[in-house]
Amino acid sequence: MTYANRPTILTGDRTTGPLHLGHYVGSLRARVQLQHEAQQFLLLADTQALTDNVGRHRKVTENVIEVALDYLAVGIDPEKSTILIQSQVPELAELSQYLLNLVTVARLERNPTIKEEIRLRGFERDIPAGFLTYPVSQAADITAFRATHVPVGDDQLPMIEQTNELVRRFNHTVEQPVLVECQAVLSNVTRLPGIDGKAKMSKSLGNAITLSASPDEITKAVNDMYTDPCHLRVSDPGQVEGNVVFAFLDAFEPDVDKVSELKSHYRRGGLGDSVVKRMLDERLQSLIEPIRARRRELADDRGEVVSILRRGTMRAREAAALTLSQVKGALGLSYF
Amino acid sequence: MTYANRPTILTGDRTTGPLHLGHYVGSLRARVQLQHEAQQFLLLADTQALTDNVGRHRKVTENVIEVALDYLAVGIDPEKSTILIQSQVPELAELSQYLLNLVTVARLERNPTIKEEIRLRGFERDIPAGFLTYPVSQAADITAFRATHVPVGDDQLPMIEQTNELVRRFNHTVEQPVLVECQAVLSNVTRLPGIDGKAKMSKSLGNAITLSASPDEITKAVNDMYTDPCHLRVSDPGQVEGNVVFAFLDAFEPDVDKVSELKSHYRRGGLGDSVVKRMLDERLQSLIEPIRARRRELADDRGEVVSILRRGTMRAREAAALTLSQVKGALGLSYF
Repeated sequence: MTYANRPTILTGDRTTGPLHLGHYVGSLRARVQLQHEAQQFLLLADTQALTDNVGRHRKVTENVIEVALDYLAVGIDPEKSTILIQSQVPELAELSQYLLNLVTVARLERNPTIKEEIRLRGFERDIPAGFLTYPVSQAADITAFRATHVPVGDDQLPMIEQTNELVRRFNHTVEQPVLVECQAVLSNVTRLPGIDGKAKMSKSLGNAITLSASPDEITKAVNDMYTDPCHLRVSDPGQVEGNVVFAFLDAFEPDVDKVSELKSHYRRGGLGDSVVKRMLDERLQSLIEPIRARRRELADDRGEVVSILRRGTMRAREAAALTLSQVKGALGLSYF
Repeated sequence: MTYANRPTILTGDRTTGPLHLGHYVGSLRARVQLQHEAQQFLLLADTQALTDNVGRHRKVTENVIEVALDYLAVGIDPEKSTILIQSQVPELAELSQYLLNLVTVARLERNPTIKEEIRLRGFERDIPAGFLTYPVSQAADITAFRATHVPVGDDQLPMIEQTNELVRRFNHTVEQPVLVECQAVLSNVTRLPGIDGKAKMSKSLGNAITLSASPDEITKAVNDMYTDPCHLRVSDPGQVEGNVVFAFLDAFEPDVDKVSELKSHYRRGGLGDSVVKRMLDERLQSLIEPIRARRRELADDRGEVVSILRRGTMRAREAAALTLSQVKGALGLSYF
């Protein structure tokens, strides 16, 4: 298996819950495509999830298999993509340790992404050291696999900047180009809102449709979707902007012309929410049905899933061990 | 090899230079004794030395073998003590990573030892993240080997406190007594001053006598030793306090009565510096001569030394891997 001149992508998910349609639109769909064009490492980021889930480690570790099931169910092919469990690649912890010496505490505290996340989590002065330093672990993940491309949201750009700073600092220190800089790949997909109209779909906000949702759960979620609160009668003109049902149709209905027509009709008036919701329900049912079926099938053969994860993790370890041995070699840390 | 009910000691040295008589008096001599009574892990702390030696990695790694030679030359028996190279035990980096989540940045910044070291190194706001967090790595070293006793200077007591805090926090989080608390063993030996009379003997201050010093170097160092600047003529009464020659005689002359007599004579007057220095010179020559000879012999068989380090490191890895697997097991991080 050679990947000469193919881009190498590193991406993944914190394992804090099963994935939902937001993940599908934001990343999973692209990953299924990209696995044909690039070498792709998919990180089940349990170690990273632990940095702000002390005491909730069971949740983190139990969801490793759930996220893996989601990956496989949507069509990630473990022969094409390397799915790995972060905590099972000790080379990442080692590499992090060396990178930690190359960044100051003040620089980590200036990272706008971390600043915002600290604010969101209400850590204030009680920031766990593991949380403040997780961008360094992330840099280790990226550089261990020599990733050239990292898909991120624009709020994550400072992470890539920090990674590349560490790469340059390391290479400068050892006077050899050991580590590789990466570039951010910004997604051009609009973020899928929650069914309540909030900007972000999130399991913890209770506004998500998971990839394992049952037919009833899907229908209920669609019926609960936030539309235009002023669109009271079918004949009223309705607003499409901020209307979750249309945001979902934009994301999931491949027939763009049809969506465009529906929007015009809705704006003019005469198109009831229930009609559009029924169409969306059908669309989502037919999208999720095969995913759910495949997921159930895989879940019944847990041994096979574990074995897929073991193989992916071993493959990933080989790649990471190679980088680590170059890093340690450059530092003079090869005694035996 | 079982060690039931025997204390387990973790100790070691940053590998930034060959060891000197200060190390011999402060720790090496005790280690040679303790290896008969306790299980002893001796850490060649290259990873820790790197936290404040970015760009000087060659110095750190080259001194690993020098410090190992010193250990072996003074009589550390690799069959009785486990000598290991820190960077070659990846389990330590992994364990650190989990412990990092259990301490806040603010708590690390409050550590008095770190505060003082930051001041000494002039880091101010440019504290490398690896340096601020090294007490956590140290806690990983201690707990990985289930050390029950850690010899420290009193300036290092906050490190032991921090370690035990992490132990309690971890055990509380996983609701199992996985890690073991340790206790500090304060040395009852007075610190050996530098030959210039400064409180601390240190290679970088140029006031040290190394364990590999040549006969001429020893004689020169003794002749250069700071005595009593007011003791101008032999007949003058001299002061023993702050007199480096007597501090050395206290440390190295086993005949306590003889030293006591010499002190009285010196205090009365009539005992010249050159006479006392000659005695000390003889004492140090006979102490260092066999160490130097053994060191040279070992240095000529570098392959054997490397092989000793490899065996010690492998033995240490087994012990650390056992602890790590319990730690990961308790967190639920055992998937395969």
